[in-house]
Amino acid sequence: MDFQLLTPALVAEFEAIVGTAHVLTAQHTEADVYADYGRDHTEDLQFTPDVVVRPGNAEEISRIVRLCHEHRIPITARGAGTGLSGGALPVHQGVVLSTERLNRILEIDERNLQATVEPGVVNEAFQNAVKEVGLFYPPDPASKGSCSLGGNLAHSSGGPKAVKYGTTKDYVLNLQVVLPTGELIWTAANTLKNSTGYNLTQLMIGSEGTLGIITKVVFRLLPYPKQNILMLVPFRQEAQAAEAVSAVFRAGIIPSGMEFMEREAIVWSSDYLKIPLTLPEDIRAHLLIELDGQDLDQLYKEAEAVYGVLEGYDIGEILLADTAAQKDDLWKIRRNIGNSVRYNSVYKEEDTVVPRAELPTLLRGVKEIGSRYGFTSVCYGHAGDGNLHVNIIRGDLDDEMWNVGLRQPITEIFELCVKLGGTISGEHGIGLVQKGYIGIALPDTNLELMRGIKRVFDPHGIMNPGKIF
Amino acid sequence: MDFQLLTPALVAEFEAIVGTAHVLTAQHTEADVYADYGRDHTEDLQFTPDVVVRPGNAEEISRIVRLCHEHRIPITARGAGTGLSGGALPVHQGVVLSTERLNRILEIDERNLQATVEPGVVNEAFQNAVKEVGLFYPPDPASKGSCSLGGNLAHSSGGPKAVKYGTTKDYVLNLQVVLPTGELIWTAANTLKNSTGYNLTQLMIGSEGTLGIITKVVFRLLPYPKQNILMLVPFRQEAQAAEAVSAVFRAGIIPSGMEFMEREAIVWSSDYLKIPLTLPEDIRAHLLIELDGQDLDQLYKEAEAVYGVLEGYDIGEILLADTAAQKDDLWKIRRNIGNSVRYNSVYKEEDTVVPRAELPTLLRGVKEIGSRYGFTSVCYGHAGDGNLHVNIIRGDLDDEMWNVGLRQPITEIFELCVKLGGTISGEHGIGLVQKGYIGIALPDTNLELMRGIKRVFDPHGIMNPGKIF
Repeated sequence: MDFQLLTPALVAEFEAIVGTAHVLTAQHTEADVYADYGRDHTEDLQFTPDVVVRPGNAEEISRIVRLCHEHRIPITARGAGTGLSGGALPVHQGVVLSTERLNRILEIDERNLQATVEPGVVNEAFQNAVKEVGLFYPPDPASKGSCSLGGNLAHSSGGPKAVKYGTTKDYVLNLQVVLPTGELIWTAANTLKNSTGYNLTQLMIGSEGTLGIITKVVFRLLPYPKQNILMLVPFRQEAQAAEAVSAVFRAGIIPSGMEFMEREAIVWSSDYLKIPLTLPEDIRAHLLIELDGQDLDQLYKEAEAVYGVLEGYDIGEILLADTAAQKDDLWKIRRNIGNSVRYNSVYKEEDTVVPRAELPTLLRGVKEIGSRYGFTSVCYGHAGDGNLHVNIIRGDLDDEMWNVGLRQPITEIFELCVKLGGTISGEHGIGLVQKGYIGIALPDTNLELMRGIKRVFDPHGIMNPGKIF
Repeated sequence: MDFQLLTPALVAEFEAIVGTAHVLTAQHTEADVYADYGRDHTEDLQFTPDVVVRPGNAEEISRIVRLCHEHRIPITARGAGTGLSGGALPVHQGVVLSTERLNRILEIDERNLQATVEPGVVNEAFQNAVKEVGLFYPPDPASKGSCSLGGNLAHSSGGPKAVKYGTTKDYVLNLQVVLPTGELIWTAANTLKNSTGYNLTQLMIGSEGTLGIITKVVFRLLPYPKQNILMLVPFRQEAQAAEAVSAVFRAGIIPSGMEFMEREAIVWSSDYLKIPLTLPEDIRAHLLIELDGQDLDQLYKEAEAVYGVLEGYDIGEILLADTAAQKDDLWKIRRNIGNSVRYNSVYKEEDTVVPRAELPTLLRGVKEIGSRYGFTSVCYGHAGDGNLHVNIIRGDLDDEMWNVGLRQPITEIFELCVKLGGTISGEHGIGLVQKGYIGIALPDTNLELMRGIKRVFDPHGIMNPGKIF
């Protein structure tokens, strides 16, 4: 695509639309603040946009995008910047459009168990707001305290509860979107069922800001599950932990969380958080299993069934969390593995996903590839979904190995995923850093269809260029 | 689109691909048999294809479609022909491609709770097969005994259990598809989560055979819920029955079925089935409420909560189904309303859908419009989803009124749906008969995007032409 350069005249037009306070340029902005708009949580990548625009509503976004469309200016939408695949990075410079000011919960409709929100709302703020009226929004990425719902939509984010409740995509009824031409549409209707034309809603979700900018979302909600049970199960063999996952489902139990953590993952995170955890030497991995529902007696029955399954494995003493504080600590440890790894070392995170029962094979494969190529990895993730986050630790790898040499082993890991019926990203997206690998998961015919769809939506290719394919 | 006429040479090529026994023409086929391929369950519509082809596998379909693409021949895929919007009707003649021979369940993967099937498998046959190994495939259209899974995918069919378990689209992990160019792809991976490029799977589902022909499906499955409770609740006012629906959800209960039936619907169906049902004069409507799960004690607790909610309404005596036979009878009555209406009269079925709590307003509106335009309707449907099937009865309406005069009141019904946040089809699709109304639900911008996507997939417009838009 041939892009044009941003002109002072255009910047002035942006200022007229959103107000001068909400148009930032490198010249007139504190360096740290400006730099933040050029990075996310992906490795140590950093880009510099020509301008950052912070509109306040859909109409302003529509006018800005229309200008970018007319003048062929790249525009990259940005939520909270917690992405792990570089999806929000302005690799072609141009405009970074931040949705941070679209942060209102517009309506919680208790009659219909629905809510209408703006994309800049933080996931956890939304969860808490609906919980106050007895409702439940399940998708809960590890970064729920800081990530935005718009970013969740861009990658169809999951989180621990996806195993029972599905991912972001399963809660969206309708989207208001500014198309790359500046036109404003709603994709569907506010209904639980819809068989009226192509599913533009699901096409938009997971498209990583390349087909439009979401400006309002209608979510469906559930009644809040009042009770839960949480247990931490130590295993003496990693592969057995992975195998036990499938066995629990086969026993007819659908946990609301089923998280796998290697020994290193749990050690790093509890150290990082300074939460003491006694961990016998022979424990190699843990499963964190949560059951939820409306009735505690029922959950104890289910917990018994889970115990029955686990008896068949070589496990240590199961820790059943007694108090809310203990539960919080366990979840905190799980949620902060990523942060603790980031704190210790630069790392590359691979968001591998396979059919659930293939997890032991994937884990063995990752470790084998690591030992062959000389890198260590910390592995953890949503075992109930077959979604294993492989964190490749920089440690003392040299620049050559880090920037070039790892491509081959990462390719091998992804090829293994595909061979096992899986793919290369479960919930983080392709963005920038996995783009070079997408051909492993998707043949040219699929990619050509996607490029064709992209051209229909975005004839000038201005929206988040350089991502996915 | 400019289509070409089918030539004897092409018919001979089809015969070479699938065998002469599986290429049917009007000249050499019994009239009744041939006519069946030109109609479905939509009103009394009938078309005549130039040829019917019955391939046995994906490769044969690929070769046939490639020929149609090269020679600009319209091709319409057909499952079991139980559609209610005319989606499988060959309105531009050409080829009807029947998937009836692709009727194998290829694998039930108990380790991963997945199954791989061909599109010609009948819904209920699949449900029964997975139930035998303790697994559950929830989507269950009223026609489950005869409809094919491929047809279910074409319209993202729902059914009574959608209220708790979602529709067809919520169980699909991956699709093998023959594109309109003849190319064969898989849309995704066999994983519960996927954030790898655009969601071609969900784009295909609900596209009514206009973007490709599905040749294999990978479904996810659930553990089979071993227990259920079924109750039939008689109401003295239709609107109260519709109102109670929302109240049950607000009480934190998610029933596995929540069906609304007007008095006429239940009377017609029980008469048609010769299942005696005593119905006091003052009862105007029923809710059929099902609860399911693994534990009967738990279900009784939930049933008590439902009873608590229902006490607030003007209801008759609740019938709690005691035996499996009684449950079967009640479901049979619900499932055969459509058949009983068809048995009594030609009818037009409108598949209206609104946010759940708007159902009473929709129902009142439909009746008001009917009385203003002089037609009667039998209304029933999936109240838990806000999905109301409005059957407009031909009765003694003259041809003018039936073919032309009804357009205005149907338009008003659909406009009411949209005004209430709903749309014009929840699960039957747009197909042929709702095509003229799609502009009520979707503005030109949306339709232009859909047409653009259609051109990307099907540059010659051969696949199921004349449908949706």
